[in-house]
Amino acid sequence: MVQFLNKSSNPGSGKTVSERMRRKSEARRLDILHAAARVFRRSGVAAAGMREIAEEADLSPGNLYYYFSGKDELLFFCQDRTLDRMLEAAETARASTIPVGDQLRAVIRAHLHYTLDELEGATAHLEIDMLAENLRRGIIDKRDKYELAVRALITKGVKRGEFAPCDAALVARAILGALNWTVRWYRPDGAQSVSAIAEGLANYLVRGIAAHPQETTVPVRAQSGGRK
Amino acid sequence: MVQFLNKSSNPGSGKTVSERMRRKSEARRLDILHAAARVFRRSGVAAAGMREIAEEADLSPGNLYYYFSGKDELLFFCQDRTLDRMLEAAETARASTIPVGDQLRAVIRAHLHYTLDELEGATAHLEIDMLAENLRRGIIDKRDKYELAVRALITKGVKRGEFAPCDAALVARAILGALNWTVRWYRPDGAQSVSAIAEGLANYLVRGIAAHPQETTVPVRAQSGGRK
Repeated sequence: MVQFLNKSSNPGSGKTVSERMRRKSEARRLDILHAAARVFRRSGVAAAGMREIAEEADLSPGNLYYYFSGKDELLFFCQDRTLDRMLEAAETARASTIPVGDQLRAVIRAHLHYTLDELEGATAHLEIDMLAENLRRGIIDKRDKYELAVRALITKGVKRGEFAPCDAALVARAILGALNWTVRWYRPDGAQSVSAIAEGLANYLVRGIAAHPQETTVPVRAQSGGRK
Repeated sequence: MVQFLNKSSNPGSGKTVSERMRRKSEARRLDILHAAARVFRRSGVAAAGMREIAEEADLSPGNLYYYFSGKDELLFFCQDRTLDRMLEAAETARASTIPVGDQLRAVIRAHLHYTLDELEGATAHLEIDMLAENLRRGIIDKRDKYELAVRALITKGVKRGEFAPCDAALVARAILGALNWTVRWYRPDGAQSVSAIAEGLANYLVRGIAAHPQETTVPVRAQSGGRK
């Protein structure tokens, strides 16, 4: 499907005029996505309107429609980009040679970064029901793929003896639930940074299946020092 | 606020005529709530209409409005009842003399039972944004109270040395996120029963903070036998 935002295609073609134009258009589209994400966060996806998004992006409504066909498409791209990044993080973790517990921790950290720190992931990430059927399908497929990637990490950890034997599917869902729920309670002006939350959740959620949990840290607030 | 569904008031007044009528009216209201919950689950809260709910409850629309002023009020009562029951479960656990890990497990089990098994808790539980401001406030207060009850259990476990020192607020939110997220993926016709899911999640989520996690069970699918 539509994917010009995520691929830097034809790396060998040099900076031709059309390539520069394409990049400029992509940058413009990304600006618009960020503007839309700000409006989604501020007003809620249901209440956000194309006029408000156009204003936020400093565009005329007509100009906005030149880039995106409607709110549905904007929401789709916010979710699609976020999932692409999470899938990349899961693949990077999987391919690394660090202990599986650390791989899972890295995935958890990336997940929270992309949903809480990165503008287009925030809020919009969970509003999947608001997408039209044809767009929703693609997002659901990617979400399923991501869930399977998390589950595969857990299964690998069990096989290697790093994790205790467990129901990997159920644990993966518990982890994703704990992470996705942060969107409901996290406030950018709250007491804890995203990094601190990520560190705490990663430690707690990995400890629950660690074969030698005594060696892992439990999230302790404030006293843990150093971390940000 | 409105609360005639939850209190069996005046227990000493005997079964007078008005008492019987009150009970009958409450039973009728509960039937309607269950019908509304079925419609919410089937069509989604946003798409559900009072006409559809009336049909499901075998009432004329006019008769339905005699009992409930609108969809908003129906949604409110579904959520209010569910939260009351969860708060009761948390209080029962807190007041018991079993180990704190088992108290927390009991709360987790009750939470899943009330949100997945009990009709009025399902689906509607998370759609808080759809409530009008005046109704939402009461629900948010109860949710906060419930979250604090879960947090207090964790703090108690830490004090007693049953749990490792941890950020109780963050762990409580992780637990509630993992539990609330089940509404998104649980299917009544799926492979695992609510009890099996509850058992698995309780073990995983408590093990993550247990002071002696080696002694606790990790959720293992199928092989665990006996449980249902």
